[in-house]
Amino acid sequence: MKIDGRPYRTIWLAADGRSVEVIDQTKLPHAFETQRWETVADAADGIRAMVVRGAPLIGAAGAYGMALAANADPSDDALVEAYSLLLATRPTAVNLAWGLDRVTREIATIPPAERAAAAYQSAAEIADEDVATCRAIGEYGSRLISDTYDLIGRDRPINVLTHCNAGWLATVDWGTALAPVYVAHDAGIPVHVWVDETRPRNQGASLTAWELSHHGVPHTVIADNVGGHLMQHGMVDLCLVGSDRTTAAGDVCNKIGTYLKALAADDNEVPFYACVPSSTIDWTLSDGVKEIPIEQRDGREVSEISGMTADGTMATVRVTPTGSPVANYAFDVTPSRYVTGIVTERGIAHATRAGLGRLFPEFA
Amino acid sequence: MKIDGRPYRTIWLAADGRSVEVIDQTKLPHAFETQRWETVADAADGIRAMVVRGAPLIGAAGAYGMALAANADPSDDALVEAYSLLLATRPTAVNLAWGLDRVTREIATIPPAERAAAAYQSAAEIADEDVATCRAIGEYGSRLISDTYDLIGRDRPINVLTHCNAGWLATVDWGTALAPVYVAHDAGIPVHVWVDETRPRNQGASLTAWELSHHGVPHTVIADNVGGHLMQHGMVDLCLVGSDRTTAAGDVCNKIGTYLKALAADDNEVPFYACVPSSTIDWTLSDGVKEIPIEQRDGREVSEISGMTADGTMATVRVTPTGSPVANYAFDVTPSRYVTGIVTERGIAHATRAGLGRLFPEFA
Repeated sequence: MKIDGRPYRTIWLAADGRSVEVIDQTKLPHAFETQRWETVADAADGIRAMVVRGAPLIGAAGAYGMALAANADPSDDALVEAYSLLLATRPTAVNLAWGLDRVTREIATIPPAERAAAAYQSAAEIADEDVATCRAIGEYGSRLISDTYDLIGRDRPINVLTHCNAGWLATVDWGTALAPVYVAHDAGIPVHVWVDETRPRNQGASLTAWELSHHGVPHTVIADNVGGHLMQHGMVDLCLVGSDRTTAAGDVCNKIGTYLKALAADDNEVPFYACVPSSTIDWTLSDGVKEIPIEQRDGREVSEISGMTADGTMATVRVTPTGSPVANYAFDVTPSRYVTGIVTERGIAHATRAGLGRLFPEFA
Repeated sequence: MKIDGRPYRTIWLAADGRSVEVIDQTKLPHAFETQRWETVADAADGIRAMVVRGAPLIGAAGAYGMALAANADPSDDALVEAYSLLLATRPTAVNLAWGLDRVTREIATIPPAERAAAAYQSAAEIADEDVATCRAIGEYGSRLISDTYDLIGRDRPINVLTHCNAGWLATVDWGTALAPVYVAHDAGIPVHVWVDETRPRNQGASLTAWELSHHGVPHTVIADNVGGHLMQHGMVDLCLVGSDRTTAAGDVCNKIGTYLKALAADDNEVPFYACVPSSTIDWTLSDGVKEIPIEQRDGREVSEISGMTADGTMATVRVTPTGSPVANYAFDVTPSRYVTGIVTERGIAHATRAGLGRLFPEFA
């Protein structure tokens, strides 16, 4: 998508055809900086430090890390070492292992001299496929926005509420939940996005607000507590969220707080859609609330907040009293009965096993 | 309640029998300091700067402000001026006007020489009545906790979830939503409180956590997004919240985000009670969502967060990008259908006009 008029992806091959460049997301929203990776160690450092984040982007970053490794030393030993180094940076990121495995599979059985070129090509394919998947989600999902716009008589912007950052910064381009917004916006349909700040890590207030702002999409940041009130008063037409893991029955495991918005949407008859690449659907799961373990993270993400002071320096402040315990559950599960539909790269499915199975018969 | 073992109120007459002392709530949770008011100007400054906050406490503070004024100059002119000065500090605070009116009524028709003593007495009565009201709410509400404790076989602590600060810091003592917790805790029933941090002003993370911690009540601070997940997993036995304004039909207008917790409680069959002094019931209202206007506050409460840095100084950091608009709705309305009951100083009522009317026949 665009940053102040200029198109970007979150990761790309540098002009030298060898190094890799990424947007440094740790600096957002306060500064836009890119980082250049020359070596696999640079890639590992960047993934570990969350310079890049978001499952699809981490997959592509890992793949490019393998390409950098193969370019420096295509021997079996070196590639095994590179694989371990990269995997250890975010050991629980499923997409990272997937990206590393795919590149490794492509290059393992070919002569070392051909491995670097094959690895770069494999990484580029992974990135391009992610862009195509997100773009397709955007095309299908944008119809929800354009249909609503037609329905209300095309006389005011369509208000979309989103939670966390499922935008282009989490992917290679387009995003998942925000892809429909970008497609609709680029097609000239007036869209306004209510951006949940998304405590405790504030990905909405920082990343989603930043990317919408720089692409030129009207938006308003709100505390996570506000969505219910907005829906009670007809100020939300549509909720669009991402999903970290989706069950075959249509339960959606997404950033903590998603479930509360789904309840409010249900109570106020606001359509609630999850936008998911089919790779996040776990066909072995049928009851998300019971079966999906919820990660607990460091309590300091809740008790301490980082941002920019008035004099332009970064600082971290504590908001809780010393001695008060903090719990930090990272995700929750929205049962499928509160999910109006699931937007995938193959179309929009009912949030049921039958609905998802019709679009993905090979898994159902 | 107690601060590290020593009993306190939020406002009290100083040892000289003339000045007024208060806890400086602007310093919490990072420092415990008291402030001494010698003059009505001191009281006005303190109320304006939110050294004291919470509707019941503001009422008592205003009353003591009138006493300080009468002590310095009991003439009609001086009292009229003091009234205006105090009222202007928080013009929309209904309890402030109520406290000022009550003292003024008591002293207006008596000789100036007797006014100071009468004003101090009136202010003390207002404070004592608030304590008695909150204590009664605590007694009735604590039965919800003790009954649940009996029901589960007395084999683990009872988990209460609360939102914002409806604790003793918002009143003269005991609090409203937290009064049942304190009564139960002091009676030896094991209670643990999930404290919503309560964005954007963080009254939960700062004030509620601080007062529970210093009274010795086990508690855990969580992001506002977390409550639904906890309720899905049986980790909340009871929700207790306050109310800024309650309709005769039992709709509860409270800090933004309360409605979302009520929806989650309903979805998971967790009892959800509002604890309210009857003075907050507006008998003229019957549809809270339609009839209660919701205040919008400065967006900087959302985009900027203040706290303590690692080196012990206070700092304010911005979390949103410059140029991203922010909306800050301060309250929401929970429809009575999601309110299990309303705990008042006369007992627990169904959240209906009939239920409230049975307890308060003089208004119904």
